[in-house]
Amino acid sequence: MENVKQIIKSPTGTEISCKGWTQEAAMRMLMNNLDPEVAENPDELVVYGGIGKAARNWESYEQIIATLKELENDETLLVQSGKPVAVFPTHENAPRVLIANSNLVPAWANWDHFYELEDKDLMMYGQMTAGSWIYIGAQGILQGTYLSFVEAGKKVFGSADLRGKLILTGGMGGMSGAQPLAGKMAGAVILVVEVDKKRIERKIKEGYCDYLVENLDDALKMAKELQEKNEPASIGLVGNCADIYREIHDRGIVPDFVTDQTSAHDPLNGYVPNHMSLEEALQLRKSDPKVYEQKSKQAMADHVQAMLDFQTAGAEVFDYGNNIRKYAQEMGVENAFDFPGFVPAYIRPLFCEGKGPFRWAALSGDPEDIYKTDALAKEMFAEDEVLVNWIHMAQKMVKWQGLPARICWLGYGDRHRFALKVNEMVASGVLKAPIVFGRDHLDSGSVASPNRETEGMKDGSDAVSDWPILNALVNTAGGASWVSVHHGGGVGMGYSQHAGQVLVADGTKLAADKINRVLISDPGMGVVRHADAGYDIAIKTAKEQNIHMPMLKTEG
Amino acid sequence: MENVKQIIKSPTGTEISCKGWTQEAAMRMLMNNLDPEVAENPDELVVYGGIGKAARNWESYEQIIATLKELENDETLLVQSGKPVAVFPTHENAPRVLIANSNLVPAWANWDHFYELEDKDLMMYGQMTAGSWIYIGAQGILQGTYLSFVEAGKKVFGSADLRGKLILTGGMGGMSGAQPLAGKMAGAVILVVEVDKKRIERKIKEGYCDYLVENLDDALKMAKELQEKNEPASIGLVGNCADIYREIHDRGIVPDFVTDQTSAHDPLNGYVPNHMSLEEALQLRKSDPKVYEQKSKQAMADHVQAMLDFQTAGAEVFDYGNNIRKYAQEMGVENAFDFPGFVPAYIRPLFCEGKGPFRWAALSGDPEDIYKTDALAKEMFAEDEVLVNWIHMAQKMVKWQGLPARICWLGYGDRHRFALKVNEMVASGVLKAPIVFGRDHLDSGSVASPNRETEGMKDGSDAVSDWPILNALVNTAGGASWVSVHHGGGVGMGYSQHAGQVLVADGTKLAADKINRVLISDPGMGVVRHADAGYDIAIKTAKEQNIHMPMLKTEG
Ligand SMILES: NC(=O)c1ccc[n+]([C@@H]2O[C@H](COP(=O)([O-])OP(=O)(O)OC[C@H]3O[C@@H](n4cnc5c(N)ncnc54)[C@H](O)[C@@H]3O)[C@@H](O)[C@H]2O)c1
Ligand SMILES: NC(=O)c1ccc[n+]([C@@H]2O[C@H](COP(=O)([O-])OP(=O)(O)OC[C@H]3O[C@@H](n4cnc5c(N)ncnc54)[C@H](O)[C@@H]3O)[C@@H](O)[C@H]2O)c1
Repeated sequence: MENVKQIIKSPTGTEISCKGWTQEAAMRMLMNNLDPEVAENPDELVVYGGIGKAARNWESYEQIIATLKELENDETLLVQSGKPVAVFPTHENAPRVLIANSNLVPAWANWDHFYELEDKDLMMYGQMTAGSWIYIGAQGILQGTYLSFVEAGKKVFGSADLRGKLILTGGMGGMSGAQPLAGKMAGAVILVVEVDKKRIERKIKEGYCDYLVENLDDALKMAKELQEKNEPASIGLVGNCADIYREIHDRGIVPDFVTDQTSAHDPLNGYVPNHMSLEEALQLRKSDPKVYEQKSKQAMADHVQAMLDFQTAGAEVFDYGNNIRKYAQEMGVENAFDFPGFVPAYIRPLFCEGKGPFRWAALSGDPEDIYKTDALAKEMFAEDEVLVNWIHMAQKMVKWQGLPARICWLGYGDRHRFALKVNEMVASGVLKAPIVFGRDHLDSGSVASPNRETEGMKDGSDAVSDWPILNALVNTAGGASWVSVHHGGGVGMGYSQHAGQVLVADGTKLAADKINRVLISDPGMGVVRHADAGYDIAIKTAKEQNIHMPMLKTEG
Repeated sequence: MENVKQIIKSPTGTEISCKGWTQEAAMRMLMNNLDPEVAENPDELVVYGGIGKAARNWESYEQIIATLKELENDETLLVQSGKPVAVFPTHENAPRVLIANSNLVPAWANWDHFYELEDKDLMMYGQMTAGSWIYIGAQGILQGTYLSFVEAGKKVFGSADLRGKLILTGGMGGMSGAQPLAGKMAGAVILVVEVDKKRIERKIKEGYCDYLVENLDDALKMAKELQEKNEPASIGLVGNCADIYREIHDRGIVPDFVTDQTSAHDPLNGYVPNHMSLEEALQLRKSDPKVYEQKSKQAMADHVQAMLDFQTAGAEVFDYGNNIRKYAQEMGVENAFDFPGFVPAYIRPLFCEGKGPFRWAALSGDPEDIYKTDALAKEMFAEDEVLVNWIHMAQKMVKWQGLPARICWLGYGDRHRFALKVNEMVASGVLKAPIVFGRDHLDSGSVASPNRETEGMKDGSDAVSDWPILNALVNTAGGASWVSVHHGGGVGMGYSQHAGQVLVADGTKLAADKINRVLISDPGMGVVRHADAGYDIAIKTAKEQNIHMPMLKTEG
């Protein structure tokens, strides 16, 4: 069955082929993850992020669907690395699906052993939302990138509006390609240095980037004019960051924000060294990988050194999750970690309030349902200008992929209040069909990933993964529709453990009960995890919201 | 508060100080784990297994107790490495406590990082049942050892009765000290070689060993006479296994079973090298640890070589979980792994039927309650001679420690049938108070530990830890009273992941519902995990018991 090609599209509308909306939702969201509009490589069941899959193989996929169709409202399906392994009796307040993907005993938790198991068809890589059936396409990375820029702006200028500001960054590939549009959405002028001209051309075609420029003088001139006019815009400059950053710096120009999202995590097959053309680099990569890697790392050292110099000159500089500081340090840039990662710098304060990449999808398939939830969100959270602006921009610029969906960083308190209202809208028929609420595993209380989400925790608890496990357990206890525990998402085998949850609002009282538990405990875990680590914002949130933490000193 | 010494005893009887029997049970079992009769070092909150603790520190302990007393029947307490971190709303079919202990992101999952966190008071080592509040003292290891001997006997001689057979083994320390009594319970003559005379004297005092002998001739003569009389007995021989095994072999004597449980897992602070006295060894350990370690490993190589020679001569030889084969191989004994570990050899076939170290404790504190459950078990499982003999022997030889308890390896189908009857006995007042059902994390479907419980899995899935995670999730979904997920139990940081569950039978209909879910899914996971790996016994069990496995070929 491996080679059967099928084009998968989730059913839409109100007719269901399962014995309840929860099972139907799991089925539709699994199918939606494999929709060609959503998935990177649906023929291989790959959803996103390298080899992040939705099911282990086609036979497993078919059996998951078949089992969901038969599954009773007091039964639970167990999925082990994308394979449906068992159904056990539970009850109506329990999840309908429980998922564990890519988990390996630590001493064996590396890519070599993973691939050995994958070759034997015993495992798959679940990434974060691929194997837990709540990936919604490019909107997620776009919103995350937008938010990082906006939070950086709030921190430096006290304002989420970046009009007139200049962002300098690198990379216009799969994920990094969200940068030009996100920067523009935030109001800034964003200059993205990308070594491969074709990547820029593609982003221009997709409407993600405004201008392609081939030399630095033109780019800087254009940026300056746009800044002066306060006009939000994105410029793709063909060039190598390791050279261009230095040159911009040496001309005395200091952008407001400097970051980078080139594929520096991989010095051989990702990052491109400087002092040679792209063609020469591609040639060298093949002919002498060792030399390539060395030159690549040396270029990263130059690249990071320029970033450090921008920092000294007064720019807001941050690492954008590509591990470039590590390689630069390896190559002798001792103070490479003088500029922070984006999580501790901008995202963690949000995590402290239980905020994270919350999202929902309309099982009706009708964009109108999402527009109605957009309107509700804008109304309920009218004072949150970032949120309101995001929805406004997203409506204009985000293309639907598969089932219509919206991502919105809501925090503790807001998630369940919002979901309860939506549940009422389902009940009253304002919305055509149930709504599915979920989130990334990269959320406030659901991930341990010391090189990214939990980098530099205040108390040193970066690697403690009791937290994501408790998160999965309490969401299971509360009755989420499906719950997942994964290993290795985002940063690869050995480096992270994380949990997901999805909850279906089908308009029933039962759904409201579950919302009142799961959408409290889930973001609540984020507040608790950060309060326990000593973050003031989280401690304040826990107290204000009366989250019960037995060991939290009341006088603190 | 760290240094306050208190003597902890669980309350008994029918008066409760919590808002429900489930919370009361969690409180009593936590306290019972720290009862000086049960715990190895209660002042340090250490229950067993090196530094396996029940709570992170005394303040955490007090707050767990205080929180349990206030906890409602629709709330759940979250415990993170022995610290009570939060209470969230759930419902009456959810667990009252969720526990995650010692979990570390794999790349940081080593003792060094653990100790770093422990020094900062951010973590504790939960072992298996220490941090999950269901340790019941020496009975567990005694029964496990008894069962291993009996299963070995069944495999070799087709009989659980080892009368007239000779077992040769090493070690009479903390765990290994169960061997002489367990061997005797199985009917055998057991000869235990122990380098430290004091250890043997202690076991004689405790009634765990019959004879202390100081030279080999006497020991062999005595063993022969006892064998000829078919008299079950245990002999402690002062000596070093690395010498004695060789000598016995070279005299042409072939015991029926040869194993070893000296502290070979630790070549420096555990195992004692040969060709020197114990005193000399202890001296060398201090004066030159490097040389000690080298001599220690060399002795292990001699020790294992003798075991291999016994195997060639026709003895049933097995490794008893102390890693001795690994060190011998390191020292050049290439075929060290020619004899199997005890799990693949004897325990795994039981795991395939969902069998494992099931146990229960009487919250009344009254041994009569346990005797009544003993009688029930003997009646319900009358055809299981090993079980009946175990209960018979246990009643005679096992001393109560803390709350009266019984351990009994029940499998899929039997666990819930038995627990339902016990629940009825609680309801009808035949038993004075509720019964707590639990098990070791070393159970059929709840552990991934490639050097022990999941060594040499048929399909190579030894290191796949999706299984224990699914086990914890499904038991949480089903409504176990408390559920735990731990890392590093038994074999240390980096080498295992495992889950526990405990379920309170308080005589209610609600308890019966939970039994009908959790005591099906929990052993069911064991059957499923082994059926998925291709074990015939498990596949047969799954089919006979109608366990729903969507991908299990019906024709198989
Ligand atoms: N939030 C996060 O933490 C987060 C999110 C997304 C991506 N990332 C990281 O960002 C990086 C990029 O991800 P991606 O999916 O876009 O990868 P990608 O390979 O699709 O794109 C990277 C782009 O960088 C370009 N590039 C490489 N070297 C260059 C150089 N020296 N100068 C200029 N351009 C260069 C490549 O041509 C390519 O277009 C990865 O390291 C990824 O892990 C982090
Ligand atoms: N089921 C299992 O897998 C399982 C269960 C319990 C223990 N174990 C393993 O068994 C080993 C023993 O555990 P323990 O708690 O009894 O340890 P322990 O240290 O309390 O006892 C070990 C005993 O071995 C003796 N000894 C050491 N070297 C010797 C030698 N060369 N000759 C004779 N005697 C020697 C010591 O004097 C000591 O009394 C450990 O490696 C443990 O991990 C495995």
